[in-house]
Parts: sequence; structure tokens; C-alpha cells
Amino acid sequence: MYFYSCARAGYINMNHMYGYRCSINGVKHMSSLETLGFIGLGVQTVNSPADVAAQCKHIITMLPATQHVQEVYTSRGTGIFSAIQENSLLVDSSTIDPAASQEMAAIASEKDSSYVDAPVSGGVNAARDAALTFMVGGAPRSFEMAQKYLSVMGRNVVHCGPVGTGQAAKICNNMLLGISMIGTSEAMNLGKKLGLEPKLLAKILNTSSGRCWSSEVYNPCPGVLDGVPSSNNYEGGFGTALMTKDLGLANNAATVNKSPIPMGSLAHQIYRIMTSSGYAGKDFSSAYQFLQDQEEKS
Amino acid sequence: MYFYSCARAGYINMNHMYGYRCSINGVKHMSSLETLGFIGLGVQTVNSPADVAAQCKHIITMLPATQHVQEVYTSRGTGIFSAIQENSLLVDSSTIDPAASQEMAAIASEKDSSYVDAPVSGGVNAARDAALTFMVGGAPRSFEMAQKYLSVMGRNVVHCGPVGTGQAAKICNNMLLGISMIGTSEAMNLGKKLGLEPKLLAKILNTSSGRCWSSEVYNPCPGVLDGVPSSNNYEGGFGTALMTKDLGLANNAATVNKSPIPMGSLAHQIYRIMTSSGYAGKDFSSAYQFLQDQEEKS
Amino acid sequence: MYFYSCARAGYINMNHMYGYRCSINGVKHMSSLETLGFIGLGVQTVNSPADVAAQCKHIITMLPATQHVQEVYTSRGTGIFSAIQENSLLVDSSTIDPAASQEMAAIASEKDSSYVDAPVSGGVNAARDAALTFMVGGAPRSFEMAQKYLSVMGRNVVHCGPVGTGQAAKICNNMLLGISMIGTSEAMNLGKKLGLEPKLLAKILNTSSGRCWSSEVYNPCPGVLDGVPSSNNYEGGFGTALMTKDLGLANNAATVNKSPIPMGSLAHQIYRIMTSSGYAGKDFSSAYQFLQDQEEKS
Amino acid sequence: MYFYSCARAGYINMNHMYGYRCSINGVKHMSSLETLGFIGLGVQTVNSPADVAAQCKHIITMLPATQHVQEVYTSRGTGIFSAIQENSLLVDSSTIDPAASQEMAAIASEKDSSYVDAPVSGGVNAARDAALTFMVGGAPRSFEMAQKYLSVMGRNVVHCGPVGTGQAAKICNNMLLGISMIGTSEAMNLGKKLGLEPKLLAKILNTSSGRCWSSEVYNPCPGVLDGVPSSNNYEGGFGTALMTKDLGLANNAATVNKSPIPMGSLAHQIYRIMTSSGYAGKDFSSAYQFLQDQEEKS
Repeated sequence: MYFYSCARAGYINMNHMYGYRCSINGVKHMSSLETLGFIGLGVQTVNSPADVAAQCKHIITMLPATQHVQEVYTSRGTGIFSAIQENSLLVDSSTIDPAASQEMAAIASEKDSSYVDAPVSGGVNAARDAALTFMVGGAPRSFEMAQKYLSVMGRNVVHCGPVGTGQAAKICNNMLLGISMIGTSEAMNLGKKLGLEPKLLAKILNTSSGRCWSSEVYNPCPGVLDGVPSSNNYEGGFGTALMTKDLGLANNAATVNKSPIPMGSLAHQIYRIMTSSGYAGKDFSSAYQFLQDQEEKS
Repeated sequence: MYFYSCARAGYINMNHMYGYRCSINGVKHMSSLETLGFIGLGVQTVNSPADVAAQCKHIITMLPATQHVQEVYTSRGTGIFSAIQENSLLVDSSTIDPAASQEMAAIASEKDSSYVDAPVSGGVNAARDAALTFMVGGAPRSFEMAQKYLSVMGRNVVHCGPVGTGQAAKICNNMLLGISMIGTSEAMNLGKKLGLEPKLLAKILNTSSGRCWSSEVYNPCPGVLDGVPSSNNYEGGFGTALMTKDLGLANNAATVNKSPIPMGSLAHQIYRIMTSSGYAGKDFSSAYQFLQDQEEKS
Repeated sequence: MYFYSCARAGYINMNHMYGYRCSINGVKHMSSLETLGFIGLGVQTVNSPADVAAQCKHIITMLPATQHVQEVYTSRGTGIFSAIQENSLLVDSSTIDPAASQEMAAIASEKDSSYVDAPVSGGVNAARDAALTFMVGGAPRSFEMAQKYLSVMGRNVVHCGPVGTGQAAKICNNMLLGISMIGTSEAMNLGKKLGLEPKLLAKILNTSSGRCWSSEVYNPCPGVLDGVPSSNNYEGGFGTALMTKDLGLANNAATVNKSPIPMGSLAHQIYRIMTSSGYAGKDFSSAYQFLQDQEEKS
Repeated sequence: MYFYSCARAGYINMNHMYGYRCSINGVKHMSSLETLGFIGLGVQTVNSPADVAAQCKHIITMLPATQHVQEVYTSRGTGIFSAIQENSLLVDSSTIDPAASQEMAAIASEKDSSYVDAPVSGGVNAARDAALTFMVGGAPRSFEMAQKYLSVMGRNVVHCGPVGTGQAAKICNNMLLGISMIGTSEAMNLGKKLGLEPKLLAKILNTSSGRCWSSEVYNPCPGVLDGVPSSNNYEGGFGTALMTKDLGLANNAATVNKSPIPMGSLAHQIYRIMTSSGYAGKDFSSAYQFLQDQEEKS
């Protein structure tokens, strides 16, 4: 994830290896790896989310999963809510359970502050180019305030409705993405076995009714497109373990809301099996590789 | 299906209710319903595929399924092969088992004739506008000859490789389409239950990584797009029973070629259940309706 | 659900239409419908779970879902925990999220009481015959105390391990049951279409490696067995909506524990679609009917 | 496969590595590996299926897949039909497409002979103990004649109906078996992750509604049962590639007969992926291992 400068705001994100990173102001065009070196970059750092809340009224968080958000916001003594100032604006760009977003918003409201959920999509390249899409759930006034910060990082900042709908939009998008990617992998793999040249097949799909983002700009078959993970041994990109997490959220939301998602559930399980089988850290387009014959997998 | 005029060629298509329709020359811009009235339109009609073959060296067939193609080509006395002339060109635009296309091509070769498989995609509107896509499998010279006719009806006429690869491309495309459509239906349905306005959700998907043909130009949720089956009670379009048939071909090809298609198989089964449950004649985007709660289906 | 007399214990169960039923002692061989008439039967009734806790130290609860258990135990003022006596024993026979059972146990422990989860399986006939199976999670001493009550109602009372493992065993059993039932339905339906007489097919399966509880004692094909829901228009038995709930618990547990359950997930989705399509109140073996052709369903 | 002595009959089976094995009389209690050494055992061997047909009027075949049966019966010059005597009885114990069995029967009838399909189930142990189950399709008189031979090898010889219904029964049984085995693997794996001891969980399932052949006598979790493939590194037993083949037949039959088999299809795809991922030669109960976490698989 890349960050752009947003003066007067606090940031809290998390690196899986080193724990939370908190900073005040001055974060500019910085990759998530670089955030490890906050101090070296001259950025002011603090020790806990509470310290950020004590100094900043506008806070942006971006964390891996529901439990991290709950911890960063609600931990006694060290969480944001333990030191939050009145009239604060909390912008959470993590992808988490919509119900958890609504819980955070309820607590923020008790503290006379506002909260929006603002998950993000677009991938590494979009982050580098400040071309991310933010899907925001919150009251109209909170959305307007959040937009000021989010539009620095993203090209599209969409107001989806009340708190939780940003998560809902993200979950629905990623579920469809996860389905389409496996579908594209199956189609490319089957077509190749039936004698079609992969680049030609991709071209046909992309001018026909089978076309989708996965076939057009992120084709999972190595050699079809340059500059995508499939042509780089499935390194970089969006890890299978993260896609599995997002589809877990979709399944949970679907169960709670009694909504049938047969394809979404199967996609979840396939990424789960991939995660258990050595593909956890590879880009999720490695579904293509997972479905190939053993001898072709190299 | 609409036909455009292609002088000096014979046509054989099939209407489920009235059986085969065969004609010589002069078919112009005629819908499949109008072909029922071949005679009234002044088109020369004959009684059997063999009669067409006896009078025309260039024949185009478009039939519902593998068994019809086998019957029209190989029936003793009445089939094309029983009266075929030397150096004939057979263009089959049916969507059938690639292995069956290869069998027809082998017989054609024994008769000193050539055969190409040329399945078509694009739907009713593309047919009316002569904007269909033809995916053609056959020897280069045969492809060139077929192209002359097909380019009258289609905007894209793609040479996919040897005989059978036209079917392969069609099958792969429709499998991915069938998967994406159910996936889009699940995402639209879940999003609505999570509080998202359907048009807004469609807009978000279409500017994000979830976008696909089904979400963009054929959205299955009523009211999102005008002029698509979902906004017309799922009438018209591409029937669920036909999608089920195409996915049956994909499954067959995948079994024979030992290629895993978990999502394609599940899609096949869902359309199969829909076909058994009253959706056979509705457009395949009625997957959205099938997944809805009973009280919402009305 | 049938209850047998267990002197000196309190009971709390729930009727979907009339809310909670609480009683002290004297409940004997009473069906869930009869519990509506607690008063008429001379059983002492009270107004809230707290009232039960104030009078009884041994309490058995049997409630529909996780949220009801949380409400009955933790509601301020009216919940069990608000009036619990020291050294109480709480036996919850509901089928709920194992994590929720662990939360209840933790609170009970703070109140110097003990809690076991003791979900039950066996169906209506086993309940009537006191032949239920209880799967119990809890400390060994608590298990021994609970066993005294549970063995009155059930033939098998199994200690599964610490709190939560009773739920785990129930969830795993019902997941496998839900899968096998759809699998049996598919096999019976396909076999019939292939020309096999259903009773003969069932006999073959039951003497071969395909045999399972669903094929042997609860066959979903009407006419194969007497006295099962399939031979009574799928009335009675275990409702599809309840099976859907249990599979939702299995999916949740699998997601949290990163365990792949592809078949369990698909079964969940199929029962979900059935629930949305008019099968919610029918026995879950109506999966057979759901998969049949429309004209055969009548 | 083990064979018992059946005087006056011819046998044709196939070893994947060495091709067809044909013999006359005297085959007794011989494993498929031993059949490689027909000659050394003093059994009379011949060079082609035609040679068997020329010498024997009662012939039993047991071959891997549809194409082998077609080859052994119909090859010009070397196939059974090229040398068949009048009033022969052909018993095919291969598991193949029911439609192919019907084709063979039709040719046999033209040759004034009779044909029954008699696929077998039971596994290696049942074969050794002459306790196999044969499912036989054919005319009543042919069945009676075949029964004489089959009852030497099998404990159950069941007449299923006309030609093809033996295959139908076998396909339905193995589909349900394939589904139950993955379901059992999921339940055992999930239960273990939830803290249940595998032997205890198996015991609970086996006294509850989740019980099935896979949980009771062929449990896929290592250590639960002795003498099954799961306790022998999944060696021996019924290979995943063979199960994949049988489920391919089920899918084919279901597609042709328009019968929905969602669980059967998913099972097929899971075994297919296993076959592509290094599990082809392992027993199909290695589904348990396939679903485990990488670090647990070792």
C-alpha cells in the first residue's frame, strides 16, 4: 500500500512482521515496506493508537482483518477510543465484517465523533498511481470530510450509503472478482487443452460475452499479458490468503443475511484449499497454476 | 437468429416446433421466426438436407445440438453426405461437441470436401445488427472461403485453429459467461441485502475489478439496465436450457481432456436445477431471480 | 422435542410463536407443543430465565440459535446470569456456535458455576423413545453431573472434551448428514432416470459402499421406506431451515479455523436456496424433490 | 482384482502396463498382479480377445474404461465379435458408460449371443474373500447364466434390470461413495481443528445420523481404523484416478439424462484436481490429506 501526504492527519497501519505503525502528518508517497522506516524518513512516530488519537482528530487506519481493527480501536489504554478527542473523524480503510464497522461507528458516536468505513480496491499499481477506488459508508457530512483525504490517494471515492455499505460494496466486488478469476483460469486451462493458443483465446474472450477484468487486465495464464503476476511466477499482486479472507467475510455476511452464494462459497473453498497447499503467498491468479496438471506446474 | 443474403449458398437450420428448414439462395435479413415462412418470402425451399447438398456446394448449417448435426449430415438418404458434391464447403455454426465436429470433418474429407466449425456468439441484438462473432475452426483455405459468408453476418470472424477449435473457443467463452452471470447475480443479491442500491452497486462493480460483461451490459438485476432481459421479466435473450446445454458440452470436453472446472461444473448444475424448476425458457440471467427469496420473486 | 421428568431442575425452551417457556420440576414426557400448555398441565411456570435461576441450581436450556442463547443467559435483569446461584450447573442443549458456548462458560465460571454444551441429535422418534444422543463438552465433573439428567432423555451421552466440543461434534455430524442427504437424493434421482427401480437401488446402495444413514433409515425418495418424511410429503422431521442454520454454523467454524469444507459449503448453499424457494418448513430430505424435474415434483 | 476358478470360461482383463491378458479355464484365486504371470501358472493363454471367443462361449471381461471395452469387443480381426460363436454369453464386469453397454448388447444380439453388464464393487478385501457385489443388467435368462460364474466371486449378485442398469447402479453407488468420502474427510478434518479426538469423533458419527461406509469401515483419517489405506499412507485400495473416472461416467450420464447432481459434480472436480496434484495413484480416501494444511500433510 502506498500513502500520499495528508497534512494534519494520523495514520495507523500494520505490518504483519513488525506490528502496528503509527504516525502523525507528513506521510508522503510511501510504500508499506517504507513505512517500516517511518523514523528514518523523518516522520513523527508514536507508540500506540491512543497516542495518535491524543494528537490528531483525523485518523486513517488500514489493517489486515476484523480482529486488528477491534484491537486498534477498542483496546483499553492503548486503543483509539481510550484517548479520542471530541469531534474526531475516524476513517477505516481495512476490509472487515460490515457488522464490525457498525459496532465501531456506534462507539464513535457515543464519543461524539464520527466514523466511516472506506475499504479500498485497485491493487499495487493503482496505489502507486493514486488511482485507487474507495468505497465509503457513513453519514453524508462524514463522507465529505473523509473525501478530502481519500481523494488524495484515490481516483474514485464513492459514497455507498450508511456505515457498513463501504464494506458491503468491497465484499461484493471481491466475491465477484474471486469467482471470475477461477472461472477465467478454468476457461484458459480448458481452452489450452482443447488446442487453443492462450493469447488468441484471451482475445476471443475479451471481445465476447466471457470478458471480465480477470481475462482482460489480469489474465492468470502466464505469457498472455506483460506486467501481471501470472507472468512473474505469481509474485506480487493480491495474495491468495487475503482473497480467502475477503471471501470468508462474504460468506459470513451471506449467512447472516440468508443470501445464497453458491459460486462465492465454492470460490472461497478453492482459495482455502490453495492457501493450505502452498499458494498462500502467491497472487490469487495462481488459481490457474493450481488447476493445471502436475507436470505442467513446473 | 437473423440471416443475411448470401447468394449461391444453401441454408439448413432448425425450428424446434417445425423441424428442419432448408433453402437455397436468397435468404436475406430474416429472423428465425420468419424462416418458418420461407415459402411465402419467395425463397426456394427443398425437402431435405440432401436436396440442399445436391444443388449447392456451399452449405451453412445452424442447429440446436450435437445429435441434430449428426442427423442432418449423416442420415442415410436424407443427410448432406448422401448427396454431397465434390469440393463442397460445409460451414456448421451450431454449438456442439468439438469431437463431433472433427468426425464430420473427417467424413467431409473422404468426400473431397471441406468442413469448418463456426459457432457464433453475440445474442439477438448482435444478430439483428450483423455484429455477431464467429469462432472458426478449419484449414486456412477453408477458413478463407467461409469468411466470405460469415463476414456478412458477423463483425468478428476469428480463425481459431484446426477443426474443433471454433467449438472449443465457444465452449470456453460460454462457460466463463455462465459462471460470471451467476457470480454477478450473487453479488447483486447479496449487496442489496446488505443495503446497497442496485444501480450504485453495479456502477461500483463496473469501475472495479469485479466488472464483467454480465455486470456491465447484461446486468441480471431488474431495473439496473434498460433493454436487457432482466428488465423484461427475463423474456427473450439466451434461454437457461441452452446455457445448460453449452455447459454440458464444456463439462464433457473437460472430462475427456482431464481438465478441472469446479466453477464451470457448479454453474452447469445450477442452470440444470433452474431448468428443472421452471426457468428453462427464461433468459439465463434469471439466475438472479432463482437465488432471491421466495417472497421477492413474484 | 419431548421432555422427560427430571425432578429439581429448571427448564427453558423456546417456541417460535409464543416465546420462552420456563418451568420448574415436574416436566414429564411432554412434546414441544404441549409445553405451550405448561400451566394447564400443572407444571409450575415462571416469567423469565432469571426466575428459573433464582429457584433452581440445575438448569437445562434448549433454544433455536446462538442469539437466543445469548439473550436467555446474558440479558440484564431477565437473563440467567443476573440471578444465578453459586455452584449452579448450566446445561445448554441448543446447537450454536462453539465460540458462543465458550463465552457462556467463561461467564458461568466467573459466577462460580459450571456450564456444559450438550447439543442433541436423533430426531423426533428418538426423542419420543428417550433414545437421543447428547454430545457434551465440559469439565469432567460437570459432565458427570449433567449426565444424570441427560441419560433420562438419551441413550447415548458422550463426553467430547472441553466446552465447545459438544457443539463441534454436533456440527461435524450434521454437516456430514447434510452432505450425505443431498448425495443420496442425487443418486436416487439419477438412478431412477437411468431405469432403476428406487427400492432396488436403495437395497443395492445399502449393501454396498454408498450406504449411509440417509440411504438406509431416512431415504429421501418417496415410497422406499415407510414412516419417514419422504413418504409423508416431507412433513415432520428436521426442517430445511434448521439444517441450513446448522450448516451455517459449520461454515463459520470452518472459516474461523481455516478448514476447507467444499462439500459442506455447497450443501449449505443448496439448503439455503431450498429455504428461499419454498422448502424452509419441509423436512431436509426434500432435497430429493428439489432436484426433480418440475413435472415430477407435484 | 482376484479371480476364482471358473472352469470352461474365458477371461480377458487388462493390466495398464502390460496390455490385455487373455486366458482359458483354470484361473483360480489369482490377483491382478499374478495374472501377469498367467503362463508361469500353467494357465492356457492366447493372443487376442478373438482367440478367446473362438475357443469359449462364455467370456468374462474386466477392463479399465469404455474405450478398452469397445476395443476388446469390436476391433476388426482381434475383437471378440470378430470370432464370436452362436449362443455365446458375454459378461462385462468393467465400469463403463451405460450407453456403451447397450451398444455392445445390440451387437451381441445381432450375433445371436447375449450380453450382460456386471460391474463389481467391494474393493480388494472383498475380492480376496469372494465377497464382491455384482450389479447385473441383462435379460432374465442371461442373468441366470451369468450368475453361475459371478456367484463364485461375489456374495451378492443382483439383477438390476435390462442391459445398462448394472452400470447405472454402479455409477450411482460410486457417486454417493465419492461424495461421502470427501464429506467424511471434511468432517474429520474440521472436527480435529475444533479440538475433537479423531477416534472419538468417528465413534460419535458412527452412532449418529452422519454415519456412512466411509466413516465406519474406511475412515480417511490416519489412525482411526487399522487395515485401511488411510493407515497405510493411502496405498492400496481404490485409486483417486479410478474414482475420478467413475464420477466422470456419472456426470456424463447425468448430463444426457438431464439429472442435477451438484454434489456429484463437485466431488468429480475435487478428485480431478487431486489427480492433477499428485494423488492419482493414492487411495481416494486421501481426500482427507488433500484438504489438510500443508504442514500437516507430510
